[in-house]
Amino acid sequence: MKGIAFYKEGEHVRDYLLIKTVTRGTASNGKPFLTIVLQDKSGDIESKLWGCTPEDESNYVSGAVVLAEGDIMSYRGRNQFKIRTIRLADEHDSVKKSELVMAAPLSIEALDEKITQYLFEIKNPVIQRLTRALLKKHHREFYEYPAAASIHHNFLSGLAYHVCCMLDMAKAVAKLYPEVNCDLLYAGIILHDMGKLKELSGVTSTSYTLPGNLLGHISIMIDEIGKVAGEMGMAEKEEVLLLQHMVLSHHENPEWGSPKPPLFKEAEILHILDDMDAKMNIMTRAIRKTRPGEFSERVFALNNRSLYRPSFDRDDGDESSAFPSSIEDKQ
Amino acid sequence: MKGIAFYKEGEHVRDYLLIKTVTRGTASNGKPFLTIVLQDKSGDIESKLWGCTPEDESNYVSGAVVLAEGDIMSYRGRNQFKIRTIRLADEHDSVKKSELVMAAPLSIEALDEKITQYLFEIKNPVIQRLTRALLKKHHREFYEYPAAASIHHNFLSGLAYHVCCMLDMAKAVAKLYPEVNCDLLYAGIILHDMGKLKELSGVTSTSYTLPGNLLGHISIMIDEIGKVAGEMGMAEKEEVLLLQHMVLSHHENPEWGSPKPPLFKEAEILHILDDMDAKMNIMTRAIRKTRPGEFSERVFALNNRSLYRPSFDRDDGDESSAFPSSIEDKQ
Amino acid sequence: MKGIAFYKEGEHVRDYLLIKTVTRGTASNGKPFLTIVLQDKSGDIESKLWGCTPEDESNYVSGAVVLAEGDIMSYRGRNQFKIRTIRLADEHDSVKKSELVMAAPLSIEALDEKITQYLFEIKNPVIQRLTRALLKKHHREFYEYPAAASIHHNFLSGLAYHVCCMLDMAKAVAKLYPEVNCDLLYAGIILHDMGKLKELSGVTSTSYTLPGNLLGHISIMIDEIGKVAGEMGMAEKEEVLLLQHMVLSHHENPEWGSPKPPLFKEAEILHILDDMDAKMNIMTRAIRKTRPGEFSERVFALNNRSLYRPSFDRDDGDESSAFPSSIEDKQ
Amino acid sequence: MKGIAFYKEGEHVRDYLLIKTVTRGTASNGKPFLTIVLQDKSGDIESKLWGCTPEDESNYVSGAVVLAEGDIMSYRGRNQFKIRTIRLADEHDSVKKSELVMAAPLSIEALDEKITQYLFEIKNPVIQRLTRALLKKHHREFYEYPAAASIHHNFLSGLAYHVCCMLDMAKAVAKLYPEVNCDLLYAGIILHDMGKLKELSGVTSTSYTLPGNLLGHISIMIDEIGKVAGEMGMAEKEEVLLLQHMVLSHHENPEWGSPKPPLFKEAEILHILDDMDAKMNIMTRAIRKTRPGEFSERVFALNNRSLYRPSFDRDDGDESSAFPSSIEDKQ
Amino acid sequence: MKGIAFYKEGEHVRDYLLIKTVTRGTASNGKPFLTIVLQDKSGDIESKLWGCTPEDESNYVSGAVVLAEGDIMSYRGRNQFKIRTIRLADEHDSVKKSELVMAAPLSIEALDEKITQYLFEIKNPVIQRLTRALLKKHHREFYEYPAAASIHHNFLSGLAYHVCCMLDMAKAVAKLYPEVNCDLLYAGIILHDMGKLKELSGVTSTSYTLPGNLLGHISIMIDEIGKVAGEMGMAEKEEVLLLQHMVLSHHENPEWGSPKPPLFKEAEILHILDDMDAKMNIMTRAIRKTRPGEFSERVFALNNRSLYRPSFDRDDGDESSAFPSSIEDKQ
Amino acid sequence: MKGIAFYKEGEHVRDYLLIKTVTRGTASNGKPFLTIVLQDKSGDIESKLWGCTPEDESNYVSGAVVLAEGDIMSYRGRNQFKIRTIRLADEHDSVKKSELVMAAPLSIEALDEKITQYLFEIKNPVIQRLTRALLKKHHREFYEYPAAASIHHNFLSGLAYHVCCMLDMAKAVAKLYPEVNCDLLYAGIILHDMGKLKELSGVTSTSYTLPGNLLGHISIMIDEIGKVAGEMGMAEKEEVLLLQHMVLSHHENPEWGSPKPPLFKEAEILHILDDMDAKMNIMTRAIRKTRPGEFSERVFALNNRSLYRPSFDRDDGDESSAFPSSIEDKQ
Repeated sequence: MKGIAFYKEGEHVRDYLLIKTVTRGTASNGKPFLTIVLQDKSGDIESKLWGCTPEDESNYVSGAVVLAEGDIMSYRGRNQFKIRTIRLADEHDSVKKSELVMAAPLSIEALDEKITQYLFEIKNPVIQRLTRALLKKHHREFYEYPAAASIHHNFLSGLAYHVCCMLDMAKAVAKLYPEVNCDLLYAGIILHDMGKLKELSGVTSTSYTLPGNLLGHISIMIDEIGKVAGEMGMAEKEEVLLLQHMVLSHHENPEWGSPKPPLFKEAEILHILDDMDAKMNIMTRAIRKTRPGEFSERVFALNNRSLYRPSFDRDDGDESSAFPSSIEDKQ
Repeated sequence: MKGIAFYKEGEHVRDYLLIKTVTRGTASNGKPFLTIVLQDKSGDIESKLWGCTPEDESNYVSGAVVLAEGDIMSYRGRNQFKIRTIRLADEHDSVKKSELVMAAPLSIEALDEKITQYLFEIKNPVIQRLTRALLKKHHREFYEYPAAASIHHNFLSGLAYHVCCMLDMAKAVAKLYPEVNCDLLYAGIILHDMGKLKELSGVTSTSYTLPGNLLGHISIMIDEIGKVAGEMGMAEKEEVLLLQHMVLSHHENPEWGSPKPPLFKEAEILHILDDMDAKMNIMTRAIRKTRPGEFSERVFALNNRSLYRPSFDRDDGDESSAFPSSIEDKQ
Repeated sequence: MKGIAFYKEGEHVRDYLLIKTVTRGTASNGKPFLTIVLQDKSGDIESKLWGCTPEDESNYVSGAVVLAEGDIMSYRGRNQFKIRTIRLADEHDSVKKSELVMAAPLSIEALDEKITQYLFEIKNPVIQRLTRALLKKHHREFYEYPAAASIHHNFLSGLAYHVCCMLDMAKAVAKLYPEVNCDLLYAGIILHDMGKLKELSGVTSTSYTLPGNLLGHISIMIDEIGKVAGEMGMAEKEEVLLLQHMVLSHHENPEWGSPKPPLFKEAEILHILDDMDAKMNIMTRAIRKTRPGEFSERVFALNNRSLYRPSFDRDDGDESSAFPSSIEDKQ
Repeated sequence: MKGIAFYKEGEHVRDYLLIKTVTRGTASNGKPFLTIVLQDKSGDIESKLWGCTPEDESNYVSGAVVLAEGDIMSYRGRNQFKIRTIRLADEHDSVKKSELVMAAPLSIEALDEKITQYLFEIKNPVIQRLTRALLKKHHREFYEYPAAASIHHNFLSGLAYHVCCMLDMAKAVAKLYPEVNCDLLYAGIILHDMGKLKELSGVTSTSYTLPGNLLGHISIMIDEIGKVAGEMGMAEKEEVLLLQHMVLSHHENPEWGSPKPPLFKEAEILHILDDMDAKMNIMTRAIRKTRPGEFSERVFALNNRSLYRPSFDRDDGDESSAFPSSIEDKQ
Repeated sequence: MKGIAFYKEGEHVRDYLLIKTVTRGTASNGKPFLTIVLQDKSGDIESKLWGCTPEDESNYVSGAVVLAEGDIMSYRGRNQFKIRTIRLADEHDSVKKSELVMAAPLSIEALDEKITQYLFEIKNPVIQRLTRALLKKHHREFYEYPAAASIHHNFLSGLAYHVCCMLDMAKAVAKLYPEVNCDLLYAGIILHDMGKLKELSGVTSTSYTLPGNLLGHISIMIDEIGKVAGEMGMAEKEEVLLLQHMVLSHHENPEWGSPKPPLFKEAEILHILDDMDAKMNIMTRAIRKTRPGEFSERVFALNNRSLYRPSFDRDDGDESSAFPSSIEDKQ
Repeated sequence: MKGIAFYKEGEHVRDYLLIKTVTRGTASNGKPFLTIVLQDKSGDIESKLWGCTPEDESNYVSGAVVLAEGDIMSYRGRNQFKIRTIRLADEHDSVKKSELVMAAPLSIEALDEKITQYLFEIKNPVIQRLTRALLKKHHREFYEYPAAASIHHNFLSGLAYHVCCMLDMAKAVAKLYPEVNCDLLYAGIILHDMGKLKELSGVTSTSYTLPGNLLGHISIMIDEIGKVAGEMGMAEKEEVLLLQHMVLSHHENPEWGSPKPPLFKEAEILHILDDMDAKMNIMTRAIRKTRPGEFSERVFALNNRSLYRPSFDRDDGDESSAFPSSIEDKQ
């Protein structure tokens, strides 16, 4: 199966898909229609069901698995799924809901093991103990949450996977620039987005919580680091302050949410790797939907850029994996 | 005594003054000179001592009281004190150091009483208890610190005095717009700048601390509110989150240090009153140094504006008080 | 009656309402529909009448009173009235058009009396005479016009009511900061938006006039003050220049229409109080439509912010009054 | 004589010059020095007189004519005159002060005649009468004032000369784009900077007046056009409003002082020609001081650009005329 | 014939028109409709054909000539043609397709002759030879291309016509400011937009090419000038560098595509004339569609300004010519 | 030897140093002084020689080797060398000039070998041949030039060393994100700053050339790639266009000199790695001069940030190597 996210304009689709969200609207002729976002493990796509019946409305709800058939069209520069036929999957269909959920290419166990290895490499005891404590406190959510509500790594275990990719890059950076303090860098990477566990409502149908709206994940995490360090009797340690600063400054400038810019090397590297990994994730997904020699749909999270796929780029391997990275689950 | 801050260009001065800071420089002829900031309770002024001797350097140090005589000149649009003669005050001079320290027009006791009254008016028990606890924890510094290192209310008890002025305005605002929640507004005002107690190094020769440089007073206070609320078992209360938001948003926009804008009425009013009281303090001080019918020196904290003093403005009352506000100490 | 502006999503409505504006559109099925803005004295709401007949078009015109029944829905984050049934009110319906017009909570007489009192307090004869002359020249429009076409205080006598609220706040400010010149401040407040009487087309269906489009209310008022002062032989008085400056600078910065920033205290205070009163009016109206514990619709005039209503905010009193302020008409 | 403004770095000077301004400073060795701006009719240059005596201070005052000898040096990218010898000119020196004043290349009579011709070409009676009345009211100052305090056309009759150059360009533009309304365009050009007659203090030692500081020349002129039109009973004419708009919008955007952008063709052309003529004046003067194949000093009024003079540019003709334009006085 | 671009809201139309583009859409009732852009030599207008049949879809294609009848309406502030009846033109209709194509008012021969004359006036041999070579290399496209895909001079020979207008203005500028180097100025004007021949896909249905998207016309032309100069053995000539700089800087600032601002007079004039000619073209077209005393539709390319047409502007001559300029073809 | 760049405030120095630049100034007492920039292979530092004699002026010239003794002081937040004694080195001093020149930690041969290896890994023949040809054409300068006149990698072979560091990081990135096209990425890195060979005047006393000022290194390289590709008959290859785009976009946004943002993955990565390597070089050098627990001097190239060096950072290893990277010369 190719994956719904990677079909290109004009292609025909007949796939089992999971309904992610449904919104009811009224057309200008007064009749109701449904805007259905359909997903499989490759990503999601929007579709419209015009002139829907009350039966349709009760059938096609968030979480339902359907068999849909139709064509990929382009609407205002974005792909849309024009449904020709749709029906609920039933017991005769050999499809499992869990197979349609978008998830990181590494299992939770693999991610946990990888991050734990990096944790072992942290030598400074204050940094090690604090990071370990925070990771333990939020263990379950940390390995399940997406990294963002919609922009990048928005899939099951997206946050932990994003952290893993950044840690691997960090290791390469530290090798090239040996004066880098790996303790700070690894811990900063592990903690930088942990505030999202309180900012976002959950793993699916992710929205912003009240603390998310009023404080944002950065301030939430400043508070959280302070509290846990306080409980461990380490509130006055410089290391705690440095980690709080790394979280505070990782968006680099005030307009993007960081009241302070990075003020030491490791904070700067954290920002650069966060930015690079997010961009690689976004770009790879956009390019996968684009034919060689063509421009992608406009990508809002990249300042509305439309990306070019070189005409000599090989197109064959796309379907084999939904993920850009080589860090894959071998277990 | 007129007050060193309120002399105008061309006036002659002969006053006891306290040395606030001294910096040694080397002139382009290779000789040393001292840049001395002199103060009395009205404010401060910069002066230069050219061709200083080693004796001068050991005499004129921060904290020394001197008798200086000279003229007020204008240098690059700012007043400067051109010293003709200067000597250390000795036991024969009837001047006390404490009389030369710039301080709020209300005593610490009066400020404490006033703020305590407002605290009593807070009815919501979570807000009341949390605000009271934070005030108690930082009691001594809260009533001694300036409100800023250099921009506004930079004098003994400046922070508490700034809070008092804002509370009085808040009462008037709440009377005019009755849907305002006074509990949130009063508590937000009391707490909004409390993070400065950790951001700034102290009451005199104020500089930025390491937490001040790496986090800033806003993030410091988010952390502090969180910790104290946690210790009181109120971490999950919505009121705590709202107070954290008020602190977070009180500079209104990211460029000025607030990652979130005010998201409810009381947060917005807090921002407006903070801004207005700071501006009134800055403007009044600039106008005091200006003759009717003339423009003031440029004021950096007001986007470098040069303020006009109307020609029909009365000039007589300036000397009577160094302070703009009617809230004066009657005790 | 609750007031159409204060219904929340999901509530049922059956009320007499006044048609404010009607626009005819063509749906994508080629059929006509009407976009009707309905109002009562609490505010207004948009509704759609799909598949309208020629008879509907001739019945439902601006100024007609109707009895409408339906539900409040949310469309793109804003409330909309989904009409189920609608009919013209006739002589059997006990409803008066004047009861459905949105107006200030104070009568014109009360507003006039209040402003006249402040005018009496102005001691400077140039300021007093000029302000009185301008007020007299535009007397009728001044007490009837809204303060803006759509953003804030957009109701009958909105401009005069906005001025009254600002004058009351100004009195409190002047009490706290006694060096403020009340003559300038009161006169500046009375005159600051008077140019809107020429910028806007009228009390209802308010649009921009040719002078409004080509000059704007600020430049219109610079011209108007100059002309009237000239006719009174006071053209060369500094007071006239200061009042012109207060009008010129009251939007504070070039992007918002003020080529000069406020250059004296009273001009700065005028700007702050104008801003605060407008924001309070906008915020109060947005919060009234929002349930405790929820976020309001996005408010364009507040940089698209969505405001939070604390969950412990009382909701009961909203219906009693459509106005945020305590300045109410006791006559 | 070459003209002091057109000497290049390294050249030797021995010329009669007029002292434009003198400022006294104190060097870091405590000794006084004078900063003297020297001018002739080509422009001006800054010089320093180190270690000046009291006699120097009383001799070298604004308005004095001196014979100075020295070298042109470059200081922070700008030319400076390093004085070797300087003395007051006396009766034996055959030099007249009037020959050293920088002035337009056309006499006042020639400028008046030229502008009067354009005035005759205006056919619309409202525009003609109003422009004529305003020109008559300010006749003397209009033909003597500079166009700006320091940026461009800052010489005797600079304003009128700037207007003449723009009128000639306007004629060419109108020929190419025949739908342009010449009445509006010519009148707009004549009036656009007339407010500077009240904004600036006078022809020499030009500074900003109180109306200049508080309103600026644009708002001053809105007021002035309104008043004169009112006195002529034409206050309600659309033509008056259009001319006020042209003045209001001629700086094009709010940051540069125009609250409204140009809203009709003639207002747009006025802006473009004003901008082009000012830039040509500034650029020509900067290039005159620069050798072919080199870059000029940085020009603040051109966003600090440093201009290149092509190496194949002829250098010989510079001395013949201090002015860029072909509009020269043949009388 | 009036020209489809110059009809005003409310007017009735019955004209032969050429279909420029057709887009198929699906209405919210599920039925197809066509968005047809119709043109004649005056310009173009959008129309909708609701409920189109398969026959309609095969008839009304890009390039077809139709006879359409209907009314001009206003939709979101822009004119739209509401079609009542439409049919394909056949052999009985006396209309030629070439008469419906929008083109410059000068023939290709006339444009060529005019530009060749200016080329003769260039005296510097390097500039002359290089400009001539580039013009010869791209001769056919240069005289056929539009000056932009949609913003200004978007018609047959639009680029060459834009160049001609600029050359005529340049001649007037050079006369007024005699130090201008006409060789550089004329050559810069001829070459400034030549990169558009590679940036845009062609004369009709103009879109961006791959080099257009990845480099843009400015960088394309830097490359092209370099290559041709290299082939002519003039790569190291300063003149070549100056012409490359003129192309590079003609959009004036980085945000608009020029990494360097104009650094000599001729580069600055090139920018100003380019800007003025484009604006005149855009403004004249917008005003032609507007009645005297009214505001035009909003013009995106002018920062969304809505232009005013003075009420005393004559309306009669509009129909006679679709072009703003006096440079018309007399041959 | 510690290296002049890594002394900290208050330390005493007695070292052989090379004079990099000398500027003569006149102090405000009228006496001459020299501003001498002294360097060794660790970097450079500014010093002042007050009251210099004519003999000093002829001795201390650019390129001379001296023995200087004095103290490190801080002036306006930057280190300065206060010279106590200075004399020219003579034949008795065992110091070689070449030992005092700041250079990359890898020899030219080592850099060449490393880059040649990466060149071998490029498989696409167009990209390989073009890159090889450009590298060959500029071989000598490419391995000698600094990467910038003053900001980062401003030392002998700085450009080639910067390219090597980026290539190593690129290899790590490509391993993590396997869809990256290494051919484009490696070639883009090698070529991205090659235009600096024409933009900058040379290896020492580096200034901007005429092409550097008028076009900048980005446009110079667009031209250069185009020319060489043309000569090789590959002008129309898509690969050439993609490499030109990578050069064009590598500063990411218009304000920083890139008219187009990166439009494919490899262009984006090039920008990120360029930015990261430059920042690491700048930061490491600033931190080396700073004591643990203190803030560095303000760094202009980092938006004037002052960097913090954690108090637990080891300080001992700094002197062993002047370079941040592990890529060191083992030959």
